[in-house]
Amino acid sequence: MTTHVRIHGAEAELEHDGLTDAVAVEEPLEIRVDGRPLTVTMRTPGHDEELALGFLYGEALIEAARPVAPAPDLVANTVEVTGPLARDPGERRFYTTSSCGVCGKGAIEQIAVSSEPAPAGPVVSRELVAALPERLRQPGLQRTGGMHAAVLLTAHGHAILVREDVGRHHAMDKVVGRALIDGRLPLHGLVLCVSGRLSFELVQKAARAGTPILVGVGAPTSLAVTLADEGGMTLCGFARGDRVNVYCGSERVA
Amino acid sequence: MTTHVRIHGAEAELEHDGLTDAVAVEEPLEIRVDGRPLTVTMRTPGHDEELALGFLYGEALIEAARPVAPAPDLVANTVEVTGPLARDPGERRFYTTSSCGVCGKGAIEQIAVSSEPAPAGPVVSRELVAALPERLRQPGLQRTGGMHAAVLLTAHGHAILVREDVGRHHAMDKVVGRALIDGRLPLHGLVLCVSGRLSFELVQKAARAGTPILVGVGAPTSLAVTLADEGGMTLCGFARGDRVNVYCGSERVA
Repeated sequence: MTTHVRIHGAEAELEHDGLTDAVAVEEPLEIRVDGRPLTVTMRTPGHDEELALGFLYGEALIEAARPVAPAPDLVANTVEVTGPLARDPGERRFYTTSSCGVCGKGAIEQIAVSSEPAPAGPVVSRELVAALPERLRQPGLQRTGGMHAAVLLTAHGHAILVREDVGRHHAMDKVVGRALIDGRLPLHGLVLCVSGRLSFELVQKAARAGTPILVGVGAPTSLAVTLADEGGMTLCGFARGDRVNVYCGSERVA
Repeated sequence: MTTHVRIHGAEAELEHDGLTDAVAVEEPLEIRVDGRPLTVTMRTPGHDEELALGFLYGEALIEAARPVAPAPDLVANTVEVTGPLARDPGERRFYTTSSCGVCGKGAIEQIAVSSEPAPAGPVVSRELVAALPERLRQPGLQRTGGMHAAVLLTAHGHAILVREDVGRHHAMDKVVGRALIDGRLPLHGLVLCVSGRLSFELVQKAARAGTPILVGVGAPTSLAVTLADEGGMTLCGFARGDRVNVYCGSERVA
């Protein structure tokens, strides 16, 4: 082996070719509920309690914050959540038959975690939405080029909360988990902005958290747009500083 | 609803704000084995047989190609694979306890699907590796901005096979599945290039398929580098036309 990786929290130092680079740390986290392993997911260490609670909330497995015991030491990569869960996690929606229509409607009915429709408002300016990716520039991304970020903002563009992770789903899980702990859910009147593309799962997590406006730097998928539209959300993609596409819910963009 | 989504195969036409955009189609695919649902995953329709076989091979659930019955019609979003599987899928490696060390070694032992180490060779020029992302420019990405791509190439840079998907894991699953069907595995002597970032799971899939050289447009994670290094693979990131980082296995890059 000629490559040396030294881990410092969320970032690692990597020696290769006689150079030293920073890379994003990726490690497994096991989420346990009442002592039983529920799932293992790959994430960037840090804010593990938020990640666990945000993930469970997004899956509709919990409806309120729960005590979370962190791992006994950093080496363990395990968090312990106090149960019980709101539903049997064995009833995984992804293990049902998904004989969905090509329009995606059937798919959504079968796989979507049901969420309340987003209430009316707020209205934000198109210029503000287009410029939101600026708020995603975090130290981890700048040093490693390999982090995703999610930021929760007011309708005036004031950043309330930012989280980074190698997984863009987990950056959002951490934001939602923190908001759950702080009693901020549902996120009515607020805006979520994420790096990367807008998938079905990201829209679902945002909808479940009650977000009226979700903005991404990248492209949306067909199912992401359909789900956002059905839930009364505003979905914006390709936010690039001076321009942005509004795919649905354009009444919230002035 | 003011947004209309019309699906045509892997792409959808979207009307919003009085404009028409192309977006990548994302829909669930249920993979069944001998009539039993195994998993449901979000993917771009098309090459579903390759996706199913590539996914199962990557998980070490099959060792050779199997008959796959496509869905009875496009609406069903289901493929049926002939069993039996090489191991019990209930023994999910991700449901074990992952008390891994911060160096990632313990994590790898616990969650990695075991693969043969990559044999020596081939040697490719650094200029060729840096220029590989050119080969990823596919019609789907150009029209939608939301597709990932994976391309299998010879050591001279000749593209053998290209696949696109909204999920970068699935673009690689489709390439591996096609290679499995065509009797091309293991991929010794060949090069895989992927859009996006290099995660642990992508390296694992490449290692399992016997790929000696994996190249990505984006950043690697710490665990991706560690796994590639331990498996004797060459891992290159940030391939940007005129430059590329070689993180391990630099003896294959001249």
